[in-house]
Amino acid sequence: MKAAVWYGKHDIRVENSEEPIIKPGKIKVKVAWTGICGSDLHAYHGAPVVQVDEPHPVTGEMAPLILGHEFAGFIHEIGEGVVGFSVGDRVTIEPVIRCGNCNSCLKGMPNLCDQMGFVGLHSNGGFTEYTLVDPHMVHKLPDNITLEEAAVIEPTAVAFHAVKLSQMKVGSTVAVYGVGPIGLLTIQCAKAAGASHIYAVDVSNERLHKALEIGATTIINAAEEVNLVERIQAETGGGVDIAFECAGAEVTVNNALASIAKTGQVVIESIIPQPIKVDIMQLTLKEANLMATIGYRNVYKEVIAMIASGKLDVKSIITKKIALDDIVEEGFNALTNDKSQAKILVSTYKA
Amino acid sequence: MKAAVWYGKHDIRVENSEEPIIKPGKIKVKVAWTGICGSDLHAYHGAPVVQVDEPHPVTGEMAPLILGHEFAGFIHEIGEGVVGFSVGDRVTIEPVIRCGNCNSCLKGMPNLCDQMGFVGLHSNGGFTEYTLVDPHMVHKLPDNITLEEAAVIEPTAVAFHAVKLSQMKVGSTVAVYGVGPIGLLTIQCAKAAGASHIYAVDVSNERLHKALEIGATTIINAAEEVNLVERIQAETGGGVDIAFECAGAEVTVNNALASIAKTGQVVIESIIPQPIKVDIMQLTLKEANLMATIGYRNVYKEVIAMIASGKLDVKSIITKKIALDDIVEEGFNALTNDKSQAKILVSTYKA
Repeated sequence: MKAAVWYGKHDIRVENSEEPIIKPGKIKVKVAWTGICGSDLHAYHGAPVVQVDEPHPVTGEMAPLILGHEFAGFIHEIGEGVVGFSVGDRVTIEPVIRCGNCNSCLKGMPNLCDQMGFVGLHSNGGFTEYTLVDPHMVHKLPDNITLEEAAVIEPTAVAFHAVKLSQMKVGSTVAVYGVGPIGLLTIQCAKAAGASHIYAVDVSNERLHKALEIGATTIINAAEEVNLVERIQAETGGGVDIAFECAGAEVTVNNALASIAKTGQVVIESIIPQPIKVDIMQLTLKEANLMATIGYRNVYKEVIAMIASGKLDVKSIITKKIALDDIVEEGFNALTNDKSQAKILVSTYKA
Repeated sequence: MKAAVWYGKHDIRVENSEEPIIKPGKIKVKVAWTGICGSDLHAYHGAPVVQVDEPHPVTGEMAPLILGHEFAGFIHEIGEGVVGFSVGDRVTIEPVIRCGNCNSCLKGMPNLCDQMGFVGLHSNGGFTEYTLVDPHMVHKLPDNITLEEAAVIEPTAVAFHAVKLSQMKVGSTVAVYGVGPIGLLTIQCAKAAGASHIYAVDVSNERLHKALEIGATTIINAAEEVNLVERIQAETGGGVDIAFECAGAEVTVNNALASIAKTGQVVIESIIPQPIKVDIMQLTLKEANLMATIGYRNVYKEVIAMIASGKLDVKSIITKKIALDDIVEEGFNALTNDKSQAKILVSTYKA
């Protein structure tokens, strides 16, 4: 079968890979659509997000690995001992790898597992035709969710989890800094959670127009509006209740802190590997708090129900669909160079 | 009357000051004891914490000002229109100045008032014989609280508020970084709140022994134990639930972040005026949060009751009692140079 395999920085090869053989306790999924995630892009550019050098303690796998963790498809084969599924079931994958035995796992927080990993980063993933996954990762889809939408459930879960963990309540005012896919989905989730006003802040007018389309009430281009913090403070009468930081920069974290109200909150959804300078007085004088989230837990069923009932319109973040053969040029390079791109789905039907 | 008046950096003069005359709506307090606060010390060393150049919008006062906001004494005279108090009442002062009209005040959060100030920093304070205060600042004392203890109620309220605002629950494990007066009182409050284990971290063995005496279960000298974070992580099986940062340094904030458990919390009680480098990954990989508190609100009655019933033993943080005449040498200079000092009380009886 054809697969997009990560070998190293700027070295993703679309090549033939051995089709996995079903094993006891596993489910073999025929992949339909797989989204390109920001972390796939980071992997492409060499960030240390792929399992290298030694096998992952849970999966036993390591690079070269087939990338891709945002995927949906059909159940193709069911391993011995697996119950509750049928061949042909339309499914989406919750790709979190966890040990099952650490404190976090035992407390129901697999995203905080000591050995947490992702299918497609710490085991072979979804940029291919067939892949083996664990039954706990497999969620059946209702008929009114398309497989394209189902491929966007994974990043939606990230945003949904962040909104759920935040101190957001119905009526809260919100700012979202950075409206790539996660920022856009955060806007959708905040809207669904009853936000009374949603600011979207980015440096790309194309992204901002998309943000407006899907639920932002005010858009601000940070490159053009230097006094954006003062504007948000003035328009909201003292700041937004919650700012979601989805850009991953020192300046956006501090702008987020400066634009929240007293007792407000900044939720960092991005990954910021290097320490950054933070103005603690923004927390002190407001008795505000800064938190960060990673991944999601126990939300797939809710996200699926919200999409099925139309409360989350996630398909609108899909900006392009491409073939697996074109993943490097039309996928990774397009996302790197074209800021109008949000979510690119890769079709593996004909791969 | 004699008073300790702040004129500027390293310029606090004990001099004669005009005794204030009672006014309608005010209460004249005869001061018994006044504690020297960290912010008084900051004022002495020139930090911008005193009202200068223009009158404070609420009090109309500005430097030179009589310092001192941690005080207790007797009601000496009652202004026209003030009810509910009697001359001779033993009282402690809640020295928060607030406008009463902003969003924060209207929401019951005077410590977040847009024009928040303190008696003794933004109006004449307690390092003297008599001072005028507003009735809302005056709390009557039960008979079994001494006036020395009553002078420590204000800093106790700071620690108590921080513990109340934190995510602490009975049984939580706690670390306190920096065990000056606020750190020591935080240990007391965390103990009263049912902490199952309390680490005290500081660089002074004298302070650490005091911490052990008043409720810490483990003390760590950060100057001697470089792997203190690893030790706390190992001993607690993954970190403490909450770390209170009472030292005000970049290193202690990051050590606090590194020593908390997954879903843990760092509460900054110190004032950190300059931006500091923060390792955001400590928040991300733990889904932890960093918050800060300032002052207190709506806790004086509870603090008074906790001290009266013996649940908070605050008198043990008093390390020295001095006369007003000696405030610079025996007070400010002693606190600057002698790390064994925690709370110094200034007597104004014979001033």
